Amino acid sequence: MSDRHADRRARLVAELADRDVGLAVVTDLVNVRYLTGFTGSNAAMLLAVDGAVEGALDGALDGAAVLATDGRYAHQAAQQCPGLELRIGRDLTGLLVTSAGPGRYRCAVETHALSVDTHAALAQQAPHWELVSAQRTVETLREVKDETEITALRRAAAISTQALAELWEGPLVGRTEREVARDLEWRMFALGAEAVAFETIVAAGPHSAVPHHEPTDRPLAVGDLLKIDFGARVDGYHADCTRTVLLRQGADWQAEAHAVVHAAQAAGVRALLPGAAVADVDAAVRGVLEGAGWLEWFTTGLGHGVGLQIHEDPFLSARHPGRLARRTPLTMEPGVYLPGRGGVRIEDTVVVDDDPDILTDLTTELLVVG
Amino acid sequence: MSDRHADRRARLVAELADRDVGLAVVTDLVNVRYLTGFTGSNAAMLLAVDGAVEGALDGALDGAAVLATDGRYAHQAAQQCPGLELRIGRDLTGLLVTSAGPGRYRCAVETHALSVDTHAALAQQAPHWELVSAQRTVETLREVKDETEITALRRAAAISTQALAELWEGPLVGRTEREVARDLEWRMFALGAEAVAFETIVAAGPHSAVPHHEPTDRPLAVGDLLKIDFGARVDGYHADCTRTVLLRQGADWQAEAHAVVHAAQAAGVRALLPGAAVADVDAAVRGVLEGAGWLEWFTTGLGHGVGLQIHEDPFLSARHPGRLARRTPLTMEPGVYLPGRGGVRIEDTVVVDDDPDILTDLTTELLVVG
Repeated sequence: MSDRHADRRARLVAELADRDVGLAVVTDLVNVRYLTGFTGSNAAMLLAVDGAVEGALDGALDGAAVLATDGRYAHQAAQQCPGLELRIGRDLTGLLVTSAGPGRYRCAVETHALSVDTHAALAQQAPHWELVSAQRTVETLREVKDETEITALRRAAAISTQALAELWEGPLVGRTEREVARDLEWRMFALGAEAVAFETIVAAGPHSAVPHHEPTDRPLAVGDLLKIDFGARVDGYHADCTRTVLLRQGADWQAEAHAVVHAAQAAGVRALLPGAAVADVDAAVRGVLEGAGWLEWFTTGLGHGVGLQIHEDPFLSARHPGRLARRTPLTMEPGVYLPGRGGVRIEDTVVVDDDPDILTDLTTELLVVG
Repeated sequence: MSDRHADRRARLVAELADRDVGLAVVTDLVNVRYLTGFTGSNAAMLLAVDGAVEGALDGALDGAAVLATDGRYAHQAAQQCPGLELRIGRDLTGLLVTSAGPGRYRCAVETHALSVDTHAALAQQAPHWELVSAQRTVETLREVKDETEITALRRAAAISTQALAELWEGPLVGRTEREVARDLEWRMFALGAEAVAFETIVAAGPHSAVPHHEPTDRPLAVGDLLKIDFGARVDGYHADCTRTVLLRQGADWQAEAHAVVHAAQAAGVRALLPGAAVADVDAAVRGVLEGAGWLEWFTTGLGHGVGLQIHEDPFLSARHPGRLARRTPLTMEPGVYLPGRGGVRIEDTVVVDDDPDILTDLTTELLVVG
């Protein structure tokens, strides 16, 4: 824990106070990490919020947070969360209910992430609480990143692009998709990644038409489109980058597909401005694809928030009713996929700003490598 | 999909038929993979079960399964699940409800894994269904592995132990925990791992007392206990192995701790017999530790099932009411942890059998390496 975790909890308290909520129980592990700094695999957090319905909020808890985890993580929790009250045991929700005392509260719980059974157990342990949905409040807070977060993302992105630039020096033709994926991952580790952000996609030739292809033992061949979607993780933050290149030579349709996606992706990146309506960003990209006659082949999502999760709020689509906020890192990743032939995707991780900040700073032009 | 996935679904149908259930909706992704072979990151499955309450089971669905996923995975789902009926779209539960037709059913859902919100959405989409808990039926089926699964685990375990044996050849002293973790992971990849089974624990000196330590930049030093908990993943199956060794030299208390854990772990492995009560296995291990006066330092879990998840049913403890079944792979991992000084854990992945089958076949004697 640090001041920034206390700051985040204070923002959450401010969000929840308006809703007549007295307590919040946070069970989603990523949200727990965001609010406390705890990185273990089992925990739940209780947060005292102003505005308890019946005014019985225990003074000792006011504004405070309690972290519950199991014995494996007692030491780690004490180290990572020095200012938090800790409860160690097996029954996490039971520990939290006990720590709150007998007061009657409206308690916000993460119904989008909490299982039906755990919710029922909590309701039984705390019959004096009224459980209400927290909706995606913490996820929404997480959309706008602080400097520490953007620094971690920038580093993850720099490792990713450097690793790919090294990989492109070749040789590539004749090696399998799987070998190339492994090679790229090793380079990221050597450059300081703590993990890969997700399982690397290396898709060559017809496989490039499959949006989420798993690497196979197919060798890369001259004339293939080679699509690589990958990223490094640093301090829990995920970079996400895709480039599609040609192996030694290409056909006209491949160059055309790339040119169209290239133009659409650039338009999308330029649209990632503070205050922009998400639907307008979507329309900007689709407009380019439609104008070129390729829109029907764009069958995947346009982009998503990225941070402690590889896919997080906000998700870019025509249906998103909101606007973009400064310091929101997003992927911008249009693509076209021609089943059985091949596909092109170009993706950057970009921070919304007056001059959108492209973290995955590497050429998006069509390269011929091999 | 293959015959083995159809076999697994048939076992599930048999389990559920006794409970007057007409349908099951499987939303846990690991369970979906187990029952269909689909490996994507978004899917849900509908399974028609005999015994519909009102006898209105649609003939077209009888005994059949429907897999719903989104457009990204349309191609992959068709390839991985050739015999399944596929539905492609965004609203997975809605697609499944529609595919079942208007019949009134009792429908089993995974309340231990399904979120409160998704459960509520399903209840709204299918007001003609009575939703009941499937409990952990699929997880329980998954405990006993088929030959394909054990083959994958055996391969993952062999990769793991070979990588560790190579690592022990050194040098180790002077390198950081993080470097050693990375080195071990690279070796597993080079030997054919598709991924690491979990984030590698390398804990040296006082850090070895922390059960789930995250590797740091602390260099390994002469006289350290070095605890390494790690594993490879192959075809989705996870190996899990821990060894604790001495770096070049050691003190008497370190050798004693190792000897006690070694004896306890061996007793635990010997107890992994078909029909054994789980509580008796637990007692066998604790008895050795208690007899030696070390029981108070054993503060972690004894072991767990391992397969498509690194931690899965059954979990070994004195409170588990059941008995072991043949072909159940388990970890056996007692340890002692002396805060501030050091700790020892020895862990194998073992398949329950008349002669328990140790997949992580590597000496558990105290080695001095460096």
